[in-house]
Amino acid sequence: MKIALLGHGTVGRGVDDIIRARVPEVEVARILELPDRITDERMTSNFDDILNDASIELVVECMGGIEPAHTFIAAALKARKHVVTSNKAVVAAHFGEFAQLATENDVAFLVEAAVGGGIPWIASINKVRRIDEVSYFMGIMNGTTNYILESMRRERLDFNVALGRAQELGYAEADPSADIDGIDVANKTIISACVAFDVDCVRDFPVTGIRTITKRDIDFFSSRGLVVKLFGGGRSVDGRYAVTVEPVAIPYSAMEAAVPSNFNILSVEGMTVGPLKFYGQGAGSLPTGNAIVQDVIDVAHGRRQVYNFSRGLQYDPALIMSDFVIRATRCPVYGETWAPGVWRVRNLTAEKARALLEEIWEYDPTAFMAALPREV
Amino acid sequence: MKIALLGHGTVGRGVDDIIRARVPEVEVARILELPDRITDERMTSNFDDILNDASIELVVECMGGIEPAHTFIAAALKARKHVVTSNKAVVAAHFGEFAQLATENDVAFLVEAAVGGGIPWIASINKVRRIDEVSYFMGIMNGTTNYILESMRRERLDFNVALGRAQELGYAEADPSADIDGIDVANKTIISACVAFDVDCVRDFPVTGIRTITKRDIDFFSSRGLVVKLFGGGRSVDGRYAVTVEPVAIPYSAMEAAVPSNFNILSVEGMTVGPLKFYGQGAGSLPTGNAIVQDVIDVAHGRRQVYNFSRGLQYDPALIMSDFVIRATRCPVYGETWAPGVWRVRNLTAEKARALLEEIWEYDPTAFMAALPREV
Repeated sequence: MKIALLGHGTVGRGVDDIIRARVPEVEVARILELPDRITDERMTSNFDDILNDASIELVVECMGGIEPAHTFIAAALKARKHVVTSNKAVVAAHFGEFAQLATENDVAFLVEAAVGGGIPWIASINKVRRIDEVSYFMGIMNGTTNYILESMRRERLDFNVALGRAQELGYAEADPSADIDGIDVANKTIISACVAFDVDCVRDFPVTGIRTITKRDIDFFSSRGLVVKLFGGGRSVDGRYAVTVEPVAIPYSAMEAAVPSNFNILSVEGMTVGPLKFYGQGAGSLPTGNAIVQDVIDVAHGRRQVYNFSRGLQYDPALIMSDFVIRATRCPVYGETWAPGVWRVRNLTAEKARALLEEIWEYDPTAFMAALPREV
Repeated sequence: MKIALLGHGTVGRGVDDIIRARVPEVEVARILELPDRITDERMTSNFDDILNDASIELVVECMGGIEPAHTFIAAALKARKHVVTSNKAVVAAHFGEFAQLATENDVAFLVEAAVGGGIPWIASINKVRRIDEVSYFMGIMNGTTNYILESMRRERLDFNVALGRAQELGYAEADPSADIDGIDVANKTIISACVAFDVDCVRDFPVTGIRTITKRDIDFFSSRGLVVKLFGGGRSVDGRYAVTVEPVAIPYSAMEAAVPSNFNILSVEGMTVGPLKFYGQGAGSLPTGNAIVQDVIDVAHGRRQVYNFSRGLQYDPALIMSDFVIRATRCPVYGETWAPGVWRVRNLTAEKARALLEEIWEYDPTAFMAALPREV
């Protein structure tokens, strides 16, 4: 099978290397690159060379960003080419549109590499759903913030020092907002919710990152036997669902507390299979390239996952209620005092908690908030 | 698709319930049961009623034990019926024979439920192998011993008290030898090695269980920041492989140390995908039933995993070397003293370590030994 790559950065090169070394039945025939980066006779900077080449059966999009990725993916699907992508931003923004185009044109649209790197997460949710409905999913979906939080805790670094190290190691971008403000996790949460709950997930749910966490916050949580991790997740009950992205202070004994460095862990629960967890490299050239190539092999073997988001679930923020710990100069609602300047506010929805945090940020922009799991 | 169940115990009832509730394209048409347990018009105590029924395309074997399971599976494959089984003992004993019969008769032989209950472990190894060779696999594969070790550590119970509780909860059999002596883990290790390394795994490798562990041993390891878990695993390098089953004393910070109660965790590593871990319910009616039904659905969808064990890997015990901690009245080889009656012996193969333990058991049958991971 002949395929084309859109983009030849970290992920694209991983795909190219893996296919050349390990997958003889697939050939990377064309590669879209910027005019000043053409280094290979397969490369072109004109997308039409790929779109109009009838021998190309599948397009791998690994450019990142919304445009022109959105236009190229839609055009490829309309031209009856299968599409495999690792681009979480464009999938989160347009999953419903791409799924419909794939169905109308009888081709595959596959997104394994968009969440959890090499972890077989999307495939595993789809497998669970062959038998069970998914009651919840959740996980550590962003290796950069996990690396920052782990470095702060284990090496007692300040936030900015840990962020700087993540940037030096290539884990974080020069503008780290997408990671530290939870936007990357929000994109992965949308994609996971679409697959897990078979619904075109809402986009305006509460998203809180870790930008304001301090070494003192980490020390405070440690003194209570708690470890802060940035989680994305969702829950579905009785025809309703909700999703959220927020820091959660989990007990030391939880498996998620042991996730090191820039790794990811993702959990899903079905009624008969029970809780399952999946752990691995959430990013990187070869793990993400591996996930893309797995999708390509599935297409080559005639496997076709169809998404139609037809269950018609209603969004209901009341499904996700937690207690929250707030560190601020003062707390504008009633909360039990855990320490000077630290309150526990009970039983808020993620939406109410986010509104409360925004109210606090007006007078204390350094404030930090984390949810507590039910049992703490 | 019409299928038959051989056995209607815990697992068979789980399969029957899941298919009736969730899988309309599959019908459990016949069930093999003992004459005094026939309660349903689908039931028969004559296997020939199933073997000679041409409408039955697939047989689920969930009787357990070697015979008559071995005879029935071989007969079903020869009659060109697909076979799905959860019976680790019979698969470990006869995987090569069953794989060959399945290939010769162009039917599927699927074993997802034999290792890790509801965890998609066998499917995940096979998926990793579409791209990568497996460099190692390992894991906590037996929920009963994990429950015993966790109860001893968290509630400071004696071994026999923890074992009694496991028996009360239905986790352990009246004769617990298969669990506590590592035989169940050995069976799952053989099956995992066959799939991971594409080799008909040897059967005479070192197997050590947890029968002699005491509360004082647990306390000693805790004082060193270590948690004892029973592991099965294997490694492959350069056309060679080795497997072993033994207690391992891992650091508190390892994810495996956080595995609670009777859960399982399984790890596999491929060159491009990196390390992956899979966690879930390793036993039970619904999780194990779920894994069987996933295999049945794969067959119904025309997916066929073929095993031929043709890589011709050589068994080489030198591939797995560890340091070992031994608690005994005395140590017959040189070891660094860690505490009175506790020695660390460096750099033994699992085979040498097992031989040493057997030598010690001749004068101190209460002795306990655990491997240390490389970094401790």
